[in-house]
Order: sequence, then structure tokens, then C-alpha cells
Amino acid sequence: MNSVDYGVLAPAWAGTNAATTASDVAFVQAMLDVEAAWVKVQAEVGLCTTEEAQSVAEVAKVSRYDLVSLAAKTPDGANALIPLLAMMRALLVEDGASPKAGTALHRGATSQDIIDSALMLVVSRTLQTTLADLRQTARGLASLAADHRETVCIARSLTQHALPTTFGWKAASWLSAVLSAEAGLQQAEQHLALQWGGAVGTLASLEQLLATHPKVKTTSAELSTKLAGILGLADVGAPWHTNRMPILQIGSALASAVAALGTFGADVLTASRPEIAELSEPREAGKGGSSAMPHKQNPVRSLLLRNAAISAPGLVATLFTAAGTAVDERPDGGWHSEWQALRELLRLASGAAHHGGALALGLEVNESSMERNLRLSGDAIMSERVTSVAAGFVSGGKAAVQALVRRSLTDQVSLGELLRLEIPSTELSDKELSELLDPAGYLGAADRFTTTVLAEYSARKEIWQSHS
Amino acid sequence: MNSVDYGVLAPAWAGTNAATTASDVAFVQAMLDVEAAWVKVQAEVGLCTTEEAQSVAEVAKVSRYDLVSLAAKTPDGANALIPLLAMMRALLVEDGASPKAGTALHRGATSQDIIDSALMLVVSRTLQTTLADLRQTARGLASLAADHRETVCIARSLTQHALPTTFGWKAASWLSAVLSAEAGLQQAEQHLALQWGGAVGTLASLEQLLATHPKVKTTSAELSTKLAGILGLADVGAPWHTNRMPILQIGSALASAVAALGTFGADVLTASRPEIAELSEPREAGKGGSSAMPHKQNPVRSLLLRNAAISAPGLVATLFTAAGTAVDERPDGGWHSEWQALRELLRLASGAAHHGGALALGLEVNESSMERNLRLSGDAIMSERVTSVAAGFVSGGKAAVQALVRRSLTDQVSLGELLRLEIPSTELSDKELSELLDPAGYLGAADRFTTTVLAEYSARKEIWQSHS
Amino acid sequence: MNSVDYGVLAPAWAGTNAATTASDVAFVQAMLDVEAAWVKVQAEVGLCTTEEAQSVAEVAKVSRYDLVSLAAKTPDGANALIPLLAMMRALLVEDGASPKAGTALHRGATSQDIIDSALMLVVSRTLQTTLADLRQTARGLASLAADHRETVCIARSLTQHALPTTFGWKAASWLSAVLSAEAGLQQAEQHLALQWGGAVGTLASLEQLLATHPKVKTTSAELSTKLAGILGLADVGAPWHTNRMPILQIGSALASAVAALGTFGADVLTASRPEIAELSEPREAGKGGSSAMPHKQNPVRSLLLRNAAISAPGLVATLFTAAGTAVDERPDGGWHSEWQALRELLRLASGAAHHGGALALGLEVNESSMERNLRLSGDAIMSERVTSVAAGFVSGGKAAVQALVRRSLTDQVSLGELLRLEIPSTELSDKELSELLDPAGYLGAADRFTTTVLAEYSARKEIWQSHS
Amino acid sequence: MNSVDYGVLAPAWAGTNAATTASDVAFVQAMLDVEAAWVKVQAEVGLCTTEEAQSVAEVAKVSRYDLVSLAAKTPDGANALIPLLAMMRALLVEDGASPKAGTALHRGATSQDIIDSALMLVVSRTLQTTLADLRQTARGLASLAADHRETVCIARSLTQHALPTTFGWKAASWLSAVLSAEAGLQQAEQHLALQWGGAVGTLASLEQLLATHPKVKTTSAELSTKLAGILGLADVGAPWHTNRMPILQIGSALASAVAALGTFGADVLTASRPEIAELSEPREAGKGGSSAMPHKQNPVRSLLLRNAAISAPGLVATLFTAAGTAVDERPDGGWHSEWQALRELLRLASGAAHHGGALALGLEVNESSMERNLRLSGDAIMSERVTSVAAGFVSGGKAAVQALVRRSLTDQVSLGELLRLEIPSTELSDKELSELLDPAGYLGAADRFTTTVLAEYSARKEIWQSHS
Repeated sequence: MNSVDYGVLAPAWAGTNAATTASDVAFVQAMLDVEAAWVKVQAEVGLCTTEEAQSVAEVAKVSRYDLVSLAAKTPDGANALIPLLAMMRALLVEDGASPKAGTALHRGATSQDIIDSALMLVVSRTLQTTLADLRQTARGLASLAADHRETVCIARSLTQHALPTTFGWKAASWLSAVLSAEAGLQQAEQHLALQWGGAVGTLASLEQLLATHPKVKTTSAELSTKLAGILGLADVGAPWHTNRMPILQIGSALASAVAALGTFGADVLTASRPEIAELSEPREAGKGGSSAMPHKQNPVRSLLLRNAAISAPGLVATLFTAAGTAVDERPDGGWHSEWQALRELLRLASGAAHHGGALALGLEVNESSMERNLRLSGDAIMSERVTSVAAGFVSGGKAAVQALVRRSLTDQVSLGELLRLEIPSTELSDKELSELLDPAGYLGAADRFTTTVLAEYSARKEIWQSHS
Repeated sequence: MNSVDYGVLAPAWAGTNAATTASDVAFVQAMLDVEAAWVKVQAEVGLCTTEEAQSVAEVAKVSRYDLVSLAAKTPDGANALIPLLAMMRALLVEDGASPKAGTALHRGATSQDIIDSALMLVVSRTLQTTLADLRQTARGLASLAADHRETVCIARSLTQHALPTTFGWKAASWLSAVLSAEAGLQQAEQHLALQWGGAVGTLASLEQLLATHPKVKTTSAELSTKLAGILGLADVGAPWHTNRMPILQIGSALASAVAALGTFGADVLTASRPEIAELSEPREAGKGGSSAMPHKQNPVRSLLLRNAAISAPGLVATLFTAAGTAVDERPDGGWHSEWQALRELLRLASGAAHHGGALALGLEVNESSMERNLRLSGDAIMSERVTSVAAGFVSGGKAAVQALVRRSLTDQVSLGELLRLEIPSTELSDKELSELLDPAGYLGAADRFTTTVLAEYSARKEIWQSHS
Repeated sequence: MNSVDYGVLAPAWAGTNAATTASDVAFVQAMLDVEAAWVKVQAEVGLCTTEEAQSVAEVAKVSRYDLVSLAAKTPDGANALIPLLAMMRALLVEDGASPKAGTALHRGATSQDIIDSALMLVVSRTLQTTLADLRQTARGLASLAADHRETVCIARSLTQHALPTTFGWKAASWLSAVLSAEAGLQQAEQHLALQWGGAVGTLASLEQLLATHPKVKTTSAELSTKLAGILGLADVGAPWHTNRMPILQIGSALASAVAALGTFGADVLTASRPEIAELSEPREAGKGGSSAMPHKQNPVRSLLLRNAAISAPGLVATLFTAAGTAVDERPDGGWHSEWQALRELLRLASGAAHHGGALALGLEVNESSMERNLRLSGDAIMSERVTSVAAGFVSGGKAAVQALVRRSLTDQVSLGELLRLEIPSTELSDKELSELLDPAGYLGAADRFTTTVLAEYSARKEIWQSHS
Repeated sequence: MNSVDYGVLAPAWAGTNAATTASDVAFVQAMLDVEAAWVKVQAEVGLCTTEEAQSVAEVAKVSRYDLVSLAAKTPDGANALIPLLAMMRALLVEDGASPKAGTALHRGATSQDIIDSALMLVVSRTLQTTLADLRQTARGLASLAADHRETVCIARSLTQHALPTTFGWKAASWLSAVLSAEAGLQQAEQHLALQWGGAVGTLASLEQLLATHPKVKTTSAELSTKLAGILGLADVGAPWHTNRMPILQIGSALASAVAALGTFGADVLTASRPEIAELSEPREAGKGGSSAMPHKQNPVRSLLLRNAAISAPGLVATLFTAAGTAVDERPDGGWHSEWQALRELLRLASGAAHHGGALALGLEVNESSMERNLRLSGDAIMSERVTSVAAGFVSGGKAAVQALVRRSLTDQVSLGELLRLEIPSTELSDKELSELLDPAGYLGAADRFTTTVLAEYSARKEIWQSHS
């Protein structure tokens, strides 16, 4: 039992739902499910009996298998299905099942059929919570966007203070990315397809079987459709054993979800720095404490989002390499490289969605810090506006105003005072000057953009509801 | 002029259309196009005069700029737009343009608006031929699939001979991947969006401008829509300056196209090996010759597809890293990392589509080699079928037949002869035995799958025609 | 127990030694080992008693911990050490240990000290077999190189037949890469360093402790050295908590080993194709059989090498991203991304070395296939030589000879016959002509190069022996 | 001239020395240099005349070639050397050179010999400034480390304030990574090797030539050594055409340099944020200004380091993929994928070293900000120390002190005051309490570690001087 992993090196997904639904245990169960479903389909059309199908169902329980031993045999044929099948057959014998149950088991199938379909099943099962968590994230971000439409804060460009914006629009930007990622993931989820092609993608053995059972009135196409139906996978009408585009679609969608959450996490990490202190993660019992320093509250969930965002790209690259170098009717190593990469991407996306949801729903916004930081750069952040507006009042125009801005910065003098000296109050009253320098008056279309994204959110929400 | 690249290290795209449409020259022209279009929009609504727009149009010609000098100034502000703008202003002065032309130039915009939009423009322009080439590839593969529905060849699994299949179904598998990639790329192409948000994504400066020009009856939303229209880009209603999902969508679609072509190329490379010799690239004057060995015809186009397939994944990973670690209203390095990665992906996809099209349309199929290779493994490749069928005729059933198969392999004796000795001809006639061992009779649903994919191709083709 | 992995999706390393030595179980044991060693060091200098150290040693046994529960708590503080420490303390209480044992436990340390050091320990322990397996691989390849110095075979360029070479030189090329990778890995192994810096890399807490224990005559430097000594890690004199170059060094070395083995595997895969059949993996009971097709012997070990070679690059990229974006005295997610990536690289390299060794030692060389393939291109592969030599005998010189070569290829006529017609036997006797066309006479410096690499192997072997 | 790049999308290296020394122009010149050197070697031993060598030297000038046309022909044979050679021959004819010059040109060589050697030459030439710039970076960092041994600042862990440290030790940590990267790069630089093997790595053609020139007293080994000598490359005794470890070594070393500089840049970016303001880039004319916001000073050089750090990992991955999947005596696409990836890594490392040097030498340290930020967390950052020391004075021990710390944080009360109320001044005087809470007294071994790294720097500097 020493060759076992629990997730202790994977903080981004350890302990989340995906740790269970995408574990090796879950994958082996999924392989068993595919095998059992296939015999069930055979029973439905009369290729075997219900009893035989039941016998197979009895051995299709992962708890009956020694997975350490299974893993140890995996390299022999370069996949886990081959030894699993031998173990299933041994259990059938042990159970006293009819030999015909063994005949029906895996009949006409190949390991790639079972492994690809089982992986899609694991993805499909795990995505239930992933999509739900992404929607929770969206819900949290939409609330933040709506609640903070008028919360003015500094916008930063290349780390430096630039112009004012609203925190609502900032949250809406995160939301926009999350909505896009969620839509992509849901689309990919709906295309998770059964793989069913037999040894080389021709279903030759199955067709042979049907040819020798003329009384069984069905076709290989119908059988595939039935099997896909039981498993809840899409039936795409042809095997995709060498066309790995489906893997790239789901893989890219998972990695995009990680990236969308990553940028949210990255911004929270920045804003959590004590010197900035605009945002903080909710204090939760047992979360984010430091072993050595009791005064520290670490932004753990954001950090886990960033952890996922750094880990995912290499795994996506592996999927693209495997797909782009695939050969023959079953690739010589590329296919095998997809498994760990896709499963880990799934766990990262799912773990990130879990933490993203909690973060979005519990994020604490410190408006006073936002106001303080906004003031830090003083009137300077208004210089773009001042330059364009005040140019008309100052002799020397734009260049002269820019000189004032520079003087304000170098001499640490208020820009307002300098302008007051240059512009007679008859041309620009004190009130007008003050308004000119008010960040809240220079938010441009931030509110409109927030509205646009919130409308997208509402539209998307209706789609979710119609699906459930 | 020594710090210049021509593509001599990039055989996959050098000399193709993308070498021109996605060059630095093309990118600078695209930046100039965005700037000129924006002044044109301003003229349309009365924010400047037509003459001023014309003055800007006059300087929006890449041939007027020294790009070596431009590149040298690029690191100063970490992007090329800043020095380009200075050069544009200098040219306006040189041309004797009205100072107001300079005022209108870039008014309310930020470098990210211009660079992101220009990149989308470069992608859009380059994709015209890329999509056309992918469709040519599909056309070539569809012909191969249709023409070779009945061409029996060996299917290989993990490099070894497995079962018979048809070359038509093999070509249809390539086609299936290419169709999927093409559809994804076209979808992404339709979403290539204008970036328009001003310094921090609020359009504050533009809104300010409109506020001070009450006679100009328009809105910032309308101006963005007009600008997108002129440039042929999508108007998504809000800036995407920190939401980099659009970059991931187009990047993944480009890399998927490369992967779909890569697997086609990989199979052709294998099949071009002299010992296999099932496929060969068209002999074209000047292509594939060897400097040292005149007898060699290299499968150059397939090799270039593989070259692209190996080069693309790392670039995709860069895009995901940049997106997932983006911070603030303009990221501190991640955004800058997208440029080369996305542009190179674009060139690789475009170059690969170019070579893929030529390869698919000119591929030479050597049916006699296919037949010879099919025979190489002898009756052994029929063992799956024989085992299932002959088990009923041989005492000892499946196990006994498998023993015969093994004997056939070890003793290099024909499986047919061994079976003949075991099965009386009264039970299985010579003709029946011969048919049992005929690869052409064990093709399963290969033809059905080919039909399925060809139907997808036809449906897709109608979409193309309706778009053009 | 459902959130557990066994390696069923990782055929390249499942069931090998690394599955055990680099498992989560092994990593937790390594963390426990570091904690126990540190208390032992304290006992040695009198900072605690031997009994207290013994109490800690008693709880430093992985079998006493529920790792599922540990993993579930890992995200709370984004690492597994924090909950492990709490569990250790609970066990100390349960064991009735002196409270002072708890005081000594982890005193002055931080989670990064324990995790980084434990990872280095896991790498170090796993590398013992990895290096041994790489040396076995080298041994096998050296034998092949020595045994096949005179085995002529075709050399291929861009998949096509080019010129003759020897299989000995081919094996020596693989050996050359493996020797380079092994040397790099051993060098990296010798630099695996203790991490010991306390909360922020200053050892402030430890220095404080020493300041308050003036009777304990030691220094923090001495304590670090002692600790490194017990753990068998290098003492580099300063913490490397934010300098992640050590991670890049070991990570690159592991990935280089995978790549060196990958190219060996890729060549064996090609040569195992039935049409080429120059090499085959040893038939081993239970290895490489197909579930559906009994006649198939799959080149499983080579495939696993390729599997590793495709999987490793993305993981290396993750390490470089994490290192290059690290901030502060402990990075905000990058550090956490190293763990899975480095551990998986370790397992891939170790699994690949395991299979590479078996492959190199058992590889079957089919000389008759080599001879057959050599003849496949006929005299054409000698055209380079013929062109240079025969040019002097044929009027029209080089161009005329090249025309003959082309005629030989297009008309499928022997080049020898064509030359015989052109060159009087007085100038070039039949024997001389025959020798001119003999591949065995055109091997250039293949033997010298083989000798060079074998000499490197011998030199390297002496280093191994001197180390053991 | 439209298919030309200047670096406008590559701010990290545009305008730096590498833009010139690693351009396509430089690479073509390097190919010409290799060809010319090889003819020169032939002349030295009498295989051709000095005049013929001179004729080749005359055409070995990149300015004589149309590189747009060369690039366009690159895909024909999948490399640029084939068309370049044809152009060289045409120029020889045009120059009226002896036909024998054409015979000597490229004699016995293959495109891979020229391309691999030319790439190594480009790397070697570019590294001269890269190494110098890395040493400048080290010099700058060493000064910072030495000058700021006593500058106390806050150390941050997971973005949060943790404990005090010194800025000197922080700079020394950066230095430590840079020294490690520089040493690795220099080591790799010394191993940049000539590739010389002829068509398939046997030098068959060259050996044939020598066999037919018995009067020329030399060997192929000697000729390779001479050629390596002229080119300043290492002679490793055998070709490395399929052993790509040398590419991985230099590639990893370049990427490590980027990562070492990346973490330096990342820290400067954080410290440049206006709210933190501990560090700032030197204000340089024309650098870092914003087009729209005159008040902004962007940390451009740090941003370029981060840009490089995000861009490099994907390129490293490409090199590992290419190496690990290489087949035959010349790979079918992998080799071709190395070129752009390696060259871009070289430019990124070189550009990053350039900017890193300027940054390290000009970095402005704002000690008052450091002091202010240190105070921001108040006495809380001393809680680790206080807990360990004060536990002895407070009834309730450690737990009681921790409660005080928590109270201090929640009630925003000074920890010092709370302690004063609990501990009689007879046990701990006001002065002692004040010292206990002084960050400058809790720096642990920061100074020792700084000394250790500075000693490494001094040792390394001596090596540099001994080499120059």
C-alpha cells in the first residue's frame, strides 16, 4: 500500500469533490461501468441473457478489486484495462457465473473503447460539480459587480496607478471571463462522446457477431447508440480513436476555466497585500493560518487558483503534442500520455472552481482602502482628463498643462492648486475645478460595461435553468 | 538591416501566404489601419474633419516607416505602438498636416486598444487563406475517402499489424479531425473582436470628449460599433483588456488545426517509409530533393506538418500561462507574452494548412503496397475473426483455435492450412474457409463510418458556400 | 478511500520502484523523517533530550497517519505539512510524550523547510534505482554497440533510406545520449540540498533559540550541516527558498533522461514495425499481448519510453514558469506548482529508466531484416559514393553519373549494370565495380565514432565504480 | 519585403544586441561562415587550393544574398541551407570562380552539419554579450547585497507580511540565482560543439575523398578538429545528429537564466507598486513613459524580465519534445522544431540579461518605504519572537502570549502595550521589551547568508577574470 497517492502534493484539488470523482478508484469504476453497460446492451437485444448481464454487473464494483495489484500490471500491456479484464474474468469464475457471461464481457470491444469512454465518463461526472461551482463563482462575481457599480477605485496598468475605475466593473471583467469559460466547458461537456470502434475502429468483430446472430434484429449503430444512452455520453456516429480533437476540446475548455479563475485569483492576491488591502478572503476557521506566525491570514484560496493557473498550461501542451503526433489506428505512446494530463486538468479545473466559488461568494471588499489608494497618486491620476479639459483655459495649451502635471509630481504640490493659479475662477469656478479633479466623475463607460456583462450573466443564467 | 528575420528558421510557414500577412510589416500596417480607421470614425460623426482623417490616412502606410528603428524603440515602453505614434506625429508635421489631425490621432485610445485590435486584424486577414486551405485539405481528404472506400489495407495498433481496414476510412478519420478543426477555427474567426477601452478599459477620455462636444450626437458605444464595422471585427459591447478568454479561444483553435494536420502528416510520414511505401507525396519540381543524395524523395510536406505539430503546443501553453496570471487593468508582462506566441501559432496553422492542402490533393496511394503489407502478417491478422467463428467447429473451442494461431505464427505455417486439418470440409467448405480468411470480408462498419464523415463534410461544405 | 490513486493512468511508471519511492506515502514519510532528524539534531547538541527525540521518532512513521484525512486538510493552508504537524502533536499527546517533545518538534522551522527538504529526499531515494537503471541501459547499449560494429544497416534521413551505416554506431548514438543524461542526473543528484531557513529564510527563530540557550555551544550553521548530514542532503550554506535554480537543475536533468530514453524508444518503435522488423522487444511472459488479437506482440517498453517523452516536456515547462514568476520570500502559488510537476517528472524518468534498461539488455536484433532493408533501395543508396568516384571514368562526369542514377531509379534498372555499360572494365574491373557498390565499404568513420562513445562509456563506468 | 520581422512583437529582446547577433541575417552569415571555414580547412591540407577557398570566402557574405527569396525556398527541402547552397554556386559562377571551388564547397557535408554548427555559432556569438550582461547583473546585485546588509525590510510569505529581513539578503538571494544561472550558461557555452558527420553521421563521403587522395596526409578526425578550431566550437569526437542532449543542455541553461532574471523582475514589479514603493527602476529618458498618462513611470525593464519568464517555458518544452521523439539518422520534423525555439530562447535570455543588468545597476532603493511597510503590520510581525521569548514571563505561557497577539490584531492595540500590562518591568525592562519588539534585532542569520552568497560571487568573479 505504499505506492499510493492521496493528493498531498496537490493542494488545488485535494479534499474537493474532484479528488473523489476523478481518482483512480473512480476511473476504474468507470471502466467497470462501461463494461457492465455493454453487456447490459447485449442483454437488451438478446445477444446474451439478463442473468449473464447481472453476473457482469456483480463484478463491476471497484471495491472488489485490488488496485495496487492492478496498477502493478498496468505497464505489461501499457494500459489498466487488460489486467482489469483478467481480474473480472477471474471474479466471474469465483462467483460461479455462467461461462457465457465471460463470453459477453468486452465482446467486440477493445481497450481503447473502454478507456476513452471511461475517461469521458469521469470527466462528465466530475463536471457536474465543476459547472455548478463555476456558476456559483459567477453568482458571487455578479453580486460584487452589481453591488459595487459606484465603488470607485484605482485602475492599474503595468502595476502602476493609471485612472479611476469602479470595483463593479473590475468584478464584471472577472465575471466576463468566467462566463466565457463556463459556456465553453458546458459546450464541451455536451459533446463528451462514447468511443466504440473495436480493435481498429471498424467494429469488425461486433459486425461479425451480428452476422452470426441473424435473429438478433439490430445494427452496430443501434447498439452504439444504446450504449451511449446508458452511459449518458454523446453518440457521434463514428469512432474517434485517431481523431483526438474531442480531447483537445475538453482539455482546452478545462484549461480556459482554470485561466479565467487564475486571473481572478491573481488580482485578489495583489489586492490582499497588506499595503494595498483592498480585498481579503473571508476568514474561515482553519483556513490560511500560518504554522509559525499567528498574525498571518494567508489568501489561500486565491493562491490555489494561481497554483492551478501555473500548473495547467503544461498539461494542455501535452494534450496538443499527443494529438498532433498520433499515428496509426492506435498511437504508440501519445494516447497513453493523454490520460494523466487530461485527468489532472480536470482535477485542477474542478478544484479551482470549488475555491473560486467560495472566494467569489465570500470576498471582503475594503472600500476605505480603495479610497485611500485612490488618493495615493493624488490629482495625478486625473492628469489625462485635466490635460484635455484644462488645455483650453491655459495659455500654452496642452503642453503647458502637462508641464503643470509634471511640476505637481516632482514638487509634490497639488495639481488643483497649480491649476487654480493658472486659470481664473471666472473661467473655471472652484466647484468646477474640484469636479474636474474628482475621480468619481471620470469613470467613462464603466457602468455601461458592467451592465453589458451583467446582462450576459442573466442570459446565461436562463440557459442554466432551462437545462436543469 | 541586420536585425531582421525572413523565416529561414521556420520552414513550416516560410514562403507561404502567412509569411506576408502575419509579418511584422503586416502587424505594423494593421496598427496603422486601426489608428486611421479611428480618425475616420471621428470624421464621420464630426469630431474631426475629413481632411484631418485624410492626413492621418496618408501617414498610415507602413512603407513610410523605418521598422528597424521602430523595433529598436519597442522596449522603451514595452510595445511598438508608443514609438509608432511618435513617428506618425512626426510624419504629420512633415506632411504639413493640420495640428488638429494630430489631436484626433489616437484620441481616447490606449496602446492596448491598438495592439489587440491590430493583432485580431492580422489573425482575421491571415485566416482567409488558412480557412480556404483547410477546406482544400478537407476536399482532398474527402476525395481520398470516397475513392478508397474499398481499398483494403492493414490497420495498425501500437505500430503492429492489427486488423484490416479501408484506406477510405483512414482518410475519413483524418477528414473528421480536419472538419472539426476547421469548424472551430471558423467559429473563433467570427468572434475576433475589437478592443476599445481607453487607458484602463473605461473609455473615460472618450466619454469626456463627447461630453465636451454636445453637438456631436453619438455615444461611445456607437463609435465602437462603427470602428469595429470598418475593421471587420466583432463588437462585443465591452473591452476584454483583462479577460483574455478571446485569446485562448483563437489560440486553441489554431493549435487544434495544427494538431489535426499533424496527425495526417504523421501517418503519411510512416506510410512513406520505403519499407511500407503505401503513400507518397506528389513529386514536385524542386521539392524534397536531397543535397547529397539524388535518389532521395523526402516527404517534405508531411514533415512540415509534423514540425508545426511539435512546435505549437509550447506556444499554446504560453497563452494559457499569460491569461491565467494576468493582473490589474493591464498585465505586467503576460499580455506582452501573447504577441509572439499567438502570431507564431497563426503562422504555423496557416503554413500547415497550406502544406496540408497540397498534400491532401496530391497524395499518391500505392494500392499494391497496401496489399503486400496486408499479406505480410498473413492469416494472423484474421485471427480475431477466426477465433470467434472457428471456435464452434474445433473441439477445444476458442482456446484450441488460439493455439492454432500461435502455432501458425511460431512455425510460420498458414493458418488456413492448420484450420483445414482440424475442420472437416463438410462443416466449413474450402470456399467458406477462404472467405473466412479474406481481409476484405472483415471490414466491419468501416464503410458506414466513412459515409458518416462524408455526410459531415457535405453538410459543412454547404455552410462554407452559404458564407461565401 | 475513494480519493486515492494507484498509477492506473500512468503506465510509464506504475509498478516500478518509483511508484513506491515517490508516492504520496513516501513523501509524507520523508516529511516525517525531516522533522525527526531535526529533533535528533537538537538532542545531539542539548537543545532537547534524547527521550524527547525518541518520542518524536515514534510518531515519525507514516503508517500511523490517515493520509486521506491529511490530504483533505491540505488545501486549508495550501500544504500538507501544516495538518501533518497537528496530527504529529496529537499523536505525541496520545503517546504520553513529554510536552517538551512537542516544543522541540519543528522548532524554528517552516513548512517550506520541511517540504522542500522532503522532496529532495524523495528525489534522492528514488534516484538510487533510476541511476542504476540508466547504467543498466548504458550497459545494454554498449554491448549492442560493441557487438554490432560490423552489422551494416540502412541509415534513414527524414524517414527515407539514405546511406549505409552500422547498427553498432546507431546503438552508440543512443548510448551517447544516455551517458550524457546519466552524467547530468548524477551531477544534479549530488547537489540535492537541504532547505533550512525558517519562516522567511533568516533562521531568526532558531538564532533566537540559540541566543536564549547560551550553554548550548553551537551555531545555526553547524546545526544545518548536521541536519543535512543525517538526511544525506547537500549543505549549500544558505536557504534557497526563493532561488529555485536547484529545482530547475534536477528537473531539467530528469527530463533530459526521459528524452534520451525517448529517442531510443522511438527508434525501436520504428524498427519494430512489421514491414521493417529490424528490432524487436524481448518476448516476455505477460508483456505486450493484446486483449483482442493474440498474434500481436506490442513493443510495450518502447511505447512507454515514448509515453514518458511526450509527457515530460509540459512538466518541465511548469517548473520553469514557477521559478521565473516566483515572488517574495515564499511564492504565492508557483512554489506549490513545483510539487506535482517535479514528482511526476521523477516518476517518469525513473519508470523510463526501468523500462529502458530492460529494453537495452533484451533487445533482439534481426540482422537479416537489416540486410533486406538495405537492399530495398538497391544500388541507389550508393549513389553518393558512385557519383564522386565514377565521375572520373564517365564522359560527362558528375552530371552524367547523376543521370545514370536517375535512370536506375525510374527504370528500376541496377545502377551497376548501367555503369558497366558506360565504364570499360579496363578502367574499373568487375571486382572494383562490385566493391564500389558494396554498402559495407561505405561506412566512413562509423567505427571510429563507435569507439569514441565506447571509450566514454568505459571512462564513465570507472566513475560509477569509484562512487560505489 | 513584406514577409519580414523586426522584433516589434518581441519587446524583451528587440533593440538589444541579440536582435542583431541572433537574427536570420546572422544565422545565414553563420551558415556561410561554416561553409567557408570548411573549404579553408580543405585548402590547408591540400584538398583544394587557396584560390578556391578564397573564391568561396568571397561568396560567403550575407549581404550578397536575397534573403526573402531564400526564405521562400526554405520549405522546398525543409531547410534554408539547400537553397543557400544553390545560390552560393550561382554566385561562384557569376564571380568566374574555378569550377573546383564549387567542388570543394560543402564537400562531404550535409545540411544538418551546416545548420547545427551555424546555430551553435549564433549561440556562441550571442552569448558573449549575454554572459557579460549576466555578470553585470551579478555585479549590480552584489553591490545591493553589500550596501543593504543592514537595511531592514519586511519579508513576505504568500503575499503577507511575515518577519523582518534585510534587503541585502533579498538582493543576495537574487544574486544567488543569477550566479547559478550564469555558471550553468558558461558551462553550456564551453560545450557548444561542431556538428560534422555527413549525410548520416558516418562521414562516408569525406572518408571516400581522403581514400582517393592518398597524398593528403590527414584524417577525417583531424579535419573535424581543424574546422572546430576555426569556428571556435568544441570538438566532441563524434557527431550528435540524433543525440540532442547538447540542445537540451544549452536550452535549459538559457531558460534558467531567464527564470533567474524573471524572479528578480517579479520582485521589483511588486516592490514598484505605488502602495509598496520600496524599489523603483531608474528614470531614464524615453523609458517607461505612458502615451496617455504622463504621471506614470512604468517598471518597464522588470516587466520585460517577466515577459521573458512567461515566454521561455513553452520554448523549452518544445526542445524536450523534439529531442525525446527524434527518430532515424535525421528526425522527421523534430529537428526542424528546435531552430525557432532555441533561437527565441537565446534572444529572450540575451534580452533579459541586457535589461537585468541595467535594472540591477540602476535600481533605486527607497529605505523609508521599507521602514514604513515594516511598521504597517506593527508589532505583529514580531509575534513569533515574542511568543517564544515572552512565554517564560507570562502565566499561561505560549498560549497566553498567542492570545495577546490575537487581541493586538483584532483590537488594533500595540502588542508592546499589552505585554507591558502582563509582564512586570522587573522581569523585562522597558528597554528589554523595546528591544524584543525591534525588527532589527530579529534578523537571524540574514547577514551570514548574505556573506555566503557574496563569497560565491567573489569566487565566481575570479573565474571570469581568469577566463578573459
